[in-house]
Amino acid sequence: VSEPPREPGEFELIAAIRDRLRAAGAPQRSSSAILGSGDDAAISVDVGARATSVDALVEGVHFRVPPFDHEQVGRKALAAALSDLAAMGAEASEAYVQLGVPAGLAAEDCLRIATGMGAVADQHGVVIAGGDLTRSAILFCAVTVVGNAETPEALVRRSGARPGDAVAVTGELGGAAAGLVVLERAEIAAELEPRVAEELRLRQLEPQPRLEAGLALAGAGARAMIDISDGIGADAGHLAAASDARLELELDLLPVQAGVEAVAGLAGAPASKLIAGGGEDYELLVTLAPERVEAATDALARLGVALTVIGKVTAGAGVGLRSGDGAGIDPSGFDQLDRR
Amino acid sequence: VSEPPREPGEFELIAAIRDRLRAAGAPQRSSSAILGSGDDAAISVDVGARATSVDALVEGVHFRVPPFDHEQVGRKALAAALSDLAAMGAEASEAYVQLGVPAGLAAEDCLRIATGMGAVADQHGVVIAGGDLTRSAILFCAVTVVGNAETPEALVRRSGARPGDAVAVTGELGGAAAGLVVLERAEIAAELEPRVAEELRLRQLEPQPRLEAGLALAGAGARAMIDISDGIGADAGHLAAASDARLELELDLLPVQAGVEAVAGLAGAPASKLIAGGGEDYELLVTLAPERVEAATDALARLGVALTVIGKVTAGAGVGLRSGDGAGIDPSGFDQLDRR
Repeated sequence: VSEPPREPGEFELIAAIRDRLRAAGAPQRSSSAILGSGDDAAISVDVGARATSVDALVEGVHFRVPPFDHEQVGRKALAAALSDLAAMGAEASEAYVQLGVPAGLAAEDCLRIATGMGAVADQHGVVIAGGDLTRSAILFCAVTVVGNAETPEALVRRSGARPGDAVAVTGELGGAAAGLVVLERAEIAAELEPRVAEELRLRQLEPQPRLEAGLALAGAGARAMIDISDGIGADAGHLAAASDARLELELDLLPVQAGVEAVAGLAGAPASKLIAGGGEDYELLVTLAPERVEAATDALARLGVALTVIGKVTAGAGVGLRSGDGAGIDPSGFDQLDRR
Repeated sequence: VSEPPREPGEFELIAAIRDRLRAAGAPQRSSSAILGSGDDAAISVDVGARATSVDALVEGVHFRVPPFDHEQVGRKALAAALSDLAAMGAEASEAYVQLGVPAGLAAEDCLRIATGMGAVADQHGVVIAGGDLTRSAILFCAVTVVGNAETPEALVRRSGARPGDAVAVTGELGGAAAGLVVLERAEIAAELEPRVAEELRLRQLEPQPRLEAGLALAGAGARAMIDISDGIGADAGHLAAASDARLELELDLLPVQAGVEAVAGLAGAPASKLIAGGGEDYELLVTLAPERVEAATDALARLGVALTVIGKVTAGAGVGLRSGDGAGIDPSGFDQLDRR
């Protein structure tokens, strides 16, 4: 063995990342994960059915450093992937992480990514069961997440909405898009209450996957569910298409995070663009039989999460998104291939 | 809905990729995959235990176009990931693909990646159960693969080698590294028989995961197994470390692909560098109780795959890699963070 290089090589860095994940509190095993990182593959057994989803965060597309720090990159990469499991009503179990590391990235920054990811893994009881480290011209985190359910039928798909269902959304919208404006335009940030500006920033930098709410909604009889990553207009469209139904939404009913309308006004943009078209809020859009709404609302209230009815499912296709004065707005959200 | 753009957007491209995968013969379902791509997550059920592994191919690091064409990029990305399942003795079941797409990449080239991936999926009965498409400054394919086994114990880990075991390797080594030289140096390619040069090129451009051989070796009692992606020296080191044992290998026993020594001679490099340090051959390195070697050899012969005994496991640590004249060589392979 030659003397250690100034910066660690692949295998040393992998070992250091494992240490950092452990230090951040990431669980080392779960009911289904048997052997974690360190072999050709991770070994796991199932508890019924599993949901698997993939999501990538790419430098220059989904984030820049700054305003993100590397810990937040790790946090957001895992949180965004877990949001898809929330939308299935799955219990998050394992994550696999592929990290593309530019030559100029210090090992310590790479370990900060692990710290952020480990903190989110700790928060949600997720085992980081495997990973891969590779050189890349740009920093990327490609994350695969696996969740469990007792049966395949217990998982909530996008396709189950029926005419007559109520359409509801968790939490508040628009914060992530407004947060991006606040991060990029200091003169707008300066006009806001510091606490409001900080909440908006954090909504963009450190999103929270609605895993507990997703499980509760599945338990309360959710018929169809999707997470809001592309903007509620676009994601409602995906749910409508998968369900072969139409979603009629009332713009004035959408729950809006504090400060979003002020940011829109300062930026000279329609507030609906941030609220309905902005994406990355990672709230859940759900349809429920009307008689289930009260129980679902109560279940979420126990988790401290608001559930707001914003419209209904009708026969037809597509999404209607209308404000009180009857004017329609463009419900399109963002397209991952067009972004920035 | 506005008129379609010249190049398809994210959702159109995903639909076109699905069509292309189907056209290439990629299976649409398996015994364990229930719902494929198109929801927030794929749904699957288990048949006992599963092995999960991730592997990424990054432009400028693992490939360039040319010499690769986009179909070969798709082929190699899935093949390299499946090789890790081969090394576990798992039956390949599902794959999830995250594609980073540069703005300048034509949609048709993106679909060629799907064609190549679909062909490998078809060959090995793998369902491409989910995926994600994102904009990226460089092209990357991050692949997650899932394989099945009846029990966790049926999966072969790196850690089971015991002193006295025979060490064996499938197929032939050095071809992928020599193929890279042939692709990059036309004057060396010109000195080789065209058929030999073409076989070397294909070894680099279109590697084959040893899935059937891995299953057969698991069935024949393999104690420890790893695939050769970093070079046999480095990968033997990983297996030795995981097993807390030492591997004594005879360089002169290593099976070498036709043309590798000629390429080394023409390039003025030691042949051992290509054979033992080159990586990407995706053969399997396995340890077996000596009395199991004959049955394992016969089982692989039925698949048309050679199994060559190249050394033995001893007490101790690390890897000894010696040539007949007693000279040791540096067994280090390549480090993903140092490459190119």
